[in-house]
Amino acid sequence: MATTLKDVAKEAGLAVETVSRVLNNRGYISEKTRKKVYDSMEKLGYKPNMVARTLSKGRSDAIAVIVPNMVHPYFSQMLGEIESYASEKQFQLYVSSSSGDPQKEKNLLELCENSLVAGVLIFSNQVKPETLKRFDLPIITIERFIEGGTGCVLCDNYKGGQLAAEELINKGCRNLIMLGSVRLRKMPADIREDGFMDVCRKKGVNARVLNSNPEEFKDMEYHESILKALTDFPETDGIFCSSDLIAAQALQVAAKLGRRVPEDLKIIGFDDTAISRLTTPQITTIHQPISEMAKLAFDMIIDAIEKREVQERNVLDVRLVARGTT
Amino acid sequence: MATTLKDVAKEAGLAVETVSRVLNNRGYISEKTRKKVYDSMEKLGYKPNMVARTLSKGRSDAIAVIVPNMVHPYFSQMLGEIESYASEKQFQLYVSSSSGDPQKEKNLLELCENSLVAGVLIFSNQVKPETLKRFDLPIITIERFIEGGTGCVLCDNYKGGQLAAEELINKGCRNLIMLGSVRLRKMPADIREDGFMDVCRKKGVNARVLNSNPEEFKDMEYHESILKALTDFPETDGIFCSSDLIAAQALQVAAKLGRRVPEDLKIIGFDDTAISRLTTPQITTIHQPISEMAKLAFDMIIDAIEKREVQERNVLDVRLVARGTT
Repeated sequence: MATTLKDVAKEAGLAVETVSRVLNNRGYISEKTRKKVYDSMEKLGYKPNMVARTLSKGRSDAIAVIVPNMVHPYFSQMLGEIESYASEKQFQLYVSSSSGDPQKEKNLLELCENSLVAGVLIFSNQVKPETLKRFDLPIITIERFIEGGTGCVLCDNYKGGQLAAEELINKGCRNLIMLGSVRLRKMPADIREDGFMDVCRKKGVNARVLNSNPEEFKDMEYHESILKALTDFPETDGIFCSSDLIAAQALQVAAKLGRRVPEDLKIIGFDDTAISRLTTPQITTIHQPISEMAKLAFDMIIDAIEKREVQERNVLDVRLVARGTT
Repeated sequence: MATTLKDVAKEAGLAVETVSRVLNNRGYISEKTRKKVYDSMEKLGYKPNMVARTLSKGRSDAIAVIVPNMVHPYFSQMLGEIESYASEKQFQLYVSSSSGDPQKEKNLLELCENSLVAGVLIFSNQVKPETLKRFDLPIITIERFIEGGTGCVLCDNYKGGQLAAEELINKGCRNLIMLGSVRLRKMPADIREDGFMDVCRKKGVNARVLNSNPEEFKDMEYHESILKALTDFPETDGIFCSSDLIAAQALQVAAKLGRRVPEDLKIIGFDDTAISRLTTPQITTIHQPISEMAKLAFDMIIDAIEKREVQERNVLDVRLVARGTT
């Protein structure tokens, strides 16, 4: 005969309701009680049936995460942080990539709406705000603010751009380039650009923005653009890249052109992902609080699922991490 | 009144069974028919209920992937490849990290067993083979072979080790070190070590293995070990690292010690992940066919779910990619 919740309760010397609360992770439960329940479950070989649980709750403990690209170091680190926090909170994670394709993103959201997913975390996406608002499930966006839309977690991209300009100018650069903005759609890099250019204008330093195209973002391949930039504007003595990934490639192009970093050319990245610590020299960058952003977004989606109010716009601070390229 | 499958069939001028086959992705359906069904669904605002579908099939279209670490470039690239293939095949992906902890890995497998997950792909794991075999759900392992166990996809780690030794020796190295084997448990790196050492012995070249510890693998931090290796054995002129991640750190330590790469010291990595192409110079490495491995493992888990026979041991070829560090 199959072991029941009642058997577990009896074995643990607890009320059935208490065992149920432990299994559903509901309300306060002391560590001691939790242990008693799990020990009894183990002893009796009891396995809670997730399918039954899901149906009785009308939803699963699964959160979907939609990123434009799973391999990009920024998204890979974000996914790692979200997964580790979700696992701590006993939630499962559906992960999918939209490949930056608006139609695929819409399809993924529809799939979530019609499945057992409890809520969605989505990264700076391509779906129109009107479309996004129409979906009948809790959604939190990361690195994209939607006016009057769902809650959002951002880092202070404007300040990041300012810090990058200040660092390069303070270290003596007078001919600056910013690489990586997209401008076709409002991306985080475009706001970084605003902060960067505002400081350059204020300080009277020559600066130009070289736009990137979505293909480069998708393929994570910027060598050609960087080479063109440094060939077209040989006077360049400082580059602000909108990601560490681009900065690592700028380091490679500089080596190819025989430009010493940081002596002849200074480079600054954005994100503070692992790649910025793996190059030689290591990359000076703008630190995004990736772990805090992941946790906040996760707490917000849980709040939204449980119908608690969430703050619309949450901007987390950034800071300069000075390393070997400036 | 809610739109039904029957309404969709009527609108499309097709049999209900045909519409059902399209929705369940079963059997051959022409592109034209598929389009007709989706157009009618869109027109009528019909949304298939995934929950009902899942229950009627007794399982979901979800595959779980368990990795030891989501941020490591190798696993991040594998996840990206698996996700992209799964999405093409219209499967959803549950992703979780075991943090290399055997207990967490066991818990994750139990969770999968008791949820709607149809099958599991698991990377070189810590759970004992006996335990793994006890689980009542289809499992395919990647980079770990379990005798008499489930199907497995591997790359030819032994040959990879041989190729690395040959490259270093051919380029003139006479004092070799291998970094990154674990030896506590049978990991892929240990088989690479066998191939590497066998060639060194055969060619009479001095070589030693410096074991790594699981903490280093978990934290992806090897600088200290590399520095110690190059200080203890200053005659070293070639290093074989069991991942590109370690090789990138070896490049940094070499720069710190003033050793020129490749002139004074040659370095070779393993995996051929993005990081090997992002350093200066780029890293010579052993290419793992990550995309092919991901696809094969995915096809195998589908076969296992659908009760078709799968081959136990599938070894994919590797090759040397010569770049700037040798």
